[in-house]
Amino acid sequence: MSIFKDLSKNKDQLEQGTILAPRFDANGLVSAVAIDVETHHVLTLAHMNEEALALTIETGKVHYYSRSRQKLWMKGETSGQVQYVEEIYVDCDQDAILLKVKATGPSCHNGYKSCFYRKVEGLKAPARKASLKIVDQVLIDPDTLYKS
Amino acid sequence: MSIFKDLSKNKDQLEQGTILAPRFDANGLVSAVAIDVETHHVLTLAHMNEEALALTIETGKVHYYSRSRQKLWMKGETSGQVQYVEEIYVDCDQDAILLKVKATGPSCHNGYKSCFYRKVEGLKAPARKASLKIVDQVLIDPDTLYKS
Repeated sequence: MSIFKDLSKNKDQLEQGTILAPRFDANGLVSAVAIDVETHHVLTLAHMNEEALALTIETGKVHYYSRSRQKLWMKGETSGQVQYVEEIYVDCDQDAILLKVKATGPSCHNGYKSCFYRKVEGLKAPARKASLKIVDQVLIDPDTLYKS
Repeated sequence: MSIFKDLSKNKDQLEQGTILAPRFDANGLVSAVAIDVETHHVLTLAHMNEEALALTIETGKVHYYSRSRQKLWMKGETSGQVQYVEEIYVDCDQDAILLKVKATGPSCHNGYKSCFYRKVEGLKAPARKASLKIVDQVLIDPDTLYKS
């Protein structure tokens, strides 16, 4: 049985109401973006299944669902870099989640504060010519983050 | 033919390199979050297919792919509320996009500045008891936004 209500057939309630009724997609997932509650720095953009969202609400620690590993994971379970939830928001049609978190160290497995450490260069030009530039610095060496 | 390279088999290049090689999912989509370039207010979290990303890069106006309507759309094509791209970032494994945009009016079709106008109440308690609270004010009445 689902934890959350299904309001997908009731647009008014879904978009204007006060019932939390996340609309999981065909794979059972919603998108979730985590930002630093103080700086508003965008840290991670990942996915949650029902269990991940429920655990995030209940424990105050962000849980995601890994599409590549096909499993639930608590952010920081291996690296120790937990994201502590301060506030959660849903979007208009309840298929996306915004997490405002405290995260002292790197949120990226590559050791950067944010997963978005590369900027696209070459806007307003043919997309095939665009390139990336690393615009951030590693906080902790990934070998240190994931050493056992 | 694809506009972008496929580096999904080359983790080092994918995550550390300077080649833009977005990893579209089985449905041909990546997640994309748009924030206000100045305030860092999170505005929208949606999806892009290859064409939407290419057009966003090339035109400087944010394009998404609507999963519900199954079509490409330029943000603001009906409402006039265009998101103008200032900066684009990709995440570590290139399956998510961060857009820093200028958007003067509401980004949400319900007339709010941001789609995330409802906050989840009831953290650190059973998820089935969580509720939503509207925490923002409508900037423009949706009936005005979408009148022809």
